[in-house]
Amino acid sequence: MGFRFELEEKCRHTWARVGVLHTPHGAVPTPVFCPVGTQATVKTLTPRDLEEVGASLLVANTYHLHLRPGADIVAELGGLHSFMRWGGPILTDSGGFQVFSMGHLRDIDDDGVTFRSHIDGSEHRLTPEKSIAVQGQLGADIIVALDVCPPYPSDHDHNVEALERTHRWARRCLRAQTRADQMMLGVVQGGTFADLRAESAQYLVSLDFPGYAIGGLSVGEPKTLMHDMLDVTIPLLPEEKPRHLLGVGSPEDLFEGVARGIDIFDCALPTRVARNGTFFTRDGRLNIRNARHRDDPAPVMEECSCYCCRNFSRAYLRHLVIGKEILGLHLATLHNLHFMLSLMSEIRDAVKEGRFPDLKAEFLGGYRVADYGAGNRDRRAWMSRLGVSEVAPDD
Amino acid sequence: MGFRFELEEKCRHTWARVGVLHTPHGAVPTPVFCPVGTQATVKTLTPRDLEEVGASLLVANTYHLHLRPGADIVAELGGLHSFMRWGGPILTDSGGFQVFSMGHLRDIDDDGVTFRSHIDGSEHRLTPEKSIAVQGQLGADIIVALDVCPPYPSDHDHNVEALERTHRWARRCLRAQTRADQMMLGVVQGGTFADLRAESAQYLVSLDFPGYAIGGLSVGEPKTLMHDMLDVTIPLLPEEKPRHLLGVGSPEDLFEGVARGIDIFDCALPTRVARNGTFFTRDGRLNIRNARHRDDPAPVMEECSCYCCRNFSRAYLRHLVIGKEILGLHLATLHNLHFMLSLMSEIRDAVKEGRFPDLKAEFLGGYRVADYGAGNRDRRAWMSRLGVSEVAPDD
Repeated sequence: MGFRFELEEKCRHTWARVGVLHTPHGAVPTPVFCPVGTQATVKTLTPRDLEEVGASLLVANTYHLHLRPGADIVAELGGLHSFMRWGGPILTDSGGFQVFSMGHLRDIDDDGVTFRSHIDGSEHRLTPEKSIAVQGQLGADIIVALDVCPPYPSDHDHNVEALERTHRWARRCLRAQTRADQMMLGVVQGGTFADLRAESAQYLVSLDFPGYAIGGLSVGEPKTLMHDMLDVTIPLLPEEKPRHLLGVGSPEDLFEGVARGIDIFDCALPTRVARNGTFFTRDGRLNIRNARHRDDPAPVMEECSCYCCRNFSRAYLRHLVIGKEILGLHLATLHNLHFMLSLMSEIRDAVKEGRFPDLKAEFLGGYRVADYGAGNRDRRAWMSRLGVSEVAPDD
Repeated sequence: MGFRFELEEKCRHTWARVGVLHTPHGAVPTPVFCPVGTQATVKTLTPRDLEEVGASLLVANTYHLHLRPGADIVAELGGLHSFMRWGGPILTDSGGFQVFSMGHLRDIDDDGVTFRSHIDGSEHRLTPEKSIAVQGQLGADIIVALDVCPPYPSDHDHNVEALERTHRWARRCLRAQTRADQMMLGVVQGGTFADLRAESAQYLVSLDFPGYAIGGLSVGEPKTLMHDMLDVTIPLLPEEKPRHLLGVGSPEDLFEGVARGIDIFDCALPTRVARNGTFFTRDGRLNIRNARHRDDPAPVMEECSCYCCRNFSRAYLRHLVIGKEILGLHLATLHNLHFMLSLMSEIRDAVKEGRFPDLKAEFLGGYRVADYGAGNRDRRAWMSRLGVSEVAPDD
């Protein structure tokens, strides 16, 4: 039905790989970073802005769209692609993550979850069948099976119970699928327990999903623990199927995830911090509110080719953000997504050209430098190797 | 110094005229509607959006920019054009309107006004010399003399006193001007008193400003009174100089103002109501929050060529606005400015082709139709004559 995952190149030193995921709405070069369009809009951006920054696959949230405007409305208007005017591929999540994170507002049983809307307090029911039905109405290219997301930290017993439900629900999701033009990802869970992660990966592989997502990470655990879980999980997943690390995607996460064999990332972080006046740079995060940008005529990044950096000074961007001007939030979002998508493009090129470990070391070596002595000289050295000019370090 | 006002065509039945105002940053076809960029940004829009909707002359607010980021910062960054990256002409107001509307937060004397910042309560002083100096630092093409704006209603005596100050300040502003590359407009005041309006026009004409603004209207008085004041004032102003009606510019105001000989309009209304979910149409204002747009696949205006109407359904726009999504505010702003600027372009064409009275009658006849019986048939008739398709009437 238009889906094919083509592996093009593998890194010889890490699990990194480059490929193309073909969908009914076009091809996605992987590894890919997906901007998050929670309510069927990537906040502050038009579809043409998203094209300009190089987005290919977008994520939209089933929970939010189910409550407002309602999946029936979206279906009536021709599905998400038509509704939000995004001609490229779209992925919807299961709605589970939002519902499980609602704490006392939800009640889980073997069959599903009952929860109250954050908008009007109305009661709703989410089951595996309902999630797949709603995602069917929304009409994304890639959909995600409903899983149980235990909070972090949770003990082993709690995770065993959650995992058994997740696996039963995975089977029900597969049975519930009616649309052949949607690719469903099974979700590996297991918390921070290596044995459960391995069990989950093996069980879901036995169900033969066309692709896999890894859930329940980056929920408060140390980064090293997240990396350990990826190290356990990914070798058990079939090489020929795409792997999505759910809800993860800071600039540094891209490198660590790609190195472990992740193909798809989605994360609201780059757009969320943008709306707080934080711009990504090769040195780390730049807080444009800082007084030292008050009269700085330089762009956020001299070497960046985005509309924001090509046109506007730090002084103007600071003025916009301090003055609570929407244009400031728009330009920061545009820049941060351009940064993420360009970085991923660089990563793909590096994997193809056998330079991924070097690029990773260079990027992570220069990122968030706090010591302006020896560290700064190192930073300058790799910047020089990269052929980029000096930019101010993180605030 | 690059300024020239060229009259191209006059209407034979009204005071309407078409011309071109040449400025150091380009030519402005008149009559013109100026989007308002209070804080050196037309809210939610990039400069390229403004180009796309056909903006030529922008207005920025001296009061706001003086307080934040400060005219010295703007000057240091090369002036407003460079700061906000608008290559076209810019007009700044005097700052007086905002200061006078602050009520108990300001104190007027013969020399100037002392006021407190709405941002941090700090005390500031605005005099004619200071206004011109700040506008000099901001570096707009067209600047405005500092006037006294009495509240409406105010009695004759109060208006006489305000007018005398306005006239003394007008002389001081002319004397204070140092930059030859800025065109200064003198401001006709006089409240709602025909004798004072006439006196003001005659006095300011004697000072030989290169152009005139008409202030203190659309501040709460009935529209007919505003029209009366224009009817008194405009015949006393020199035909060969441009006339700016300050702070006025609903769609219907454009027709009434142009018919009376106004060349320049500026108004925050189209962008302000956009951020409340109100879209302009040929029928009047459409409130996108209305439940009947819930599943409407039609654009706001079938016949509109703006990015918003070419791409998005009323259902999606309603979803964005109800969901408090910035994209909704952006698209509404884009549409409303496109509407205003296209309407002005239509008006210019109509004046050139001797059809202005017909266009005015047609537009005002169809706008805000509330009776869906006979009125609706009339509306359909003129829509058919205009060759436009049916759109829903005002909410």
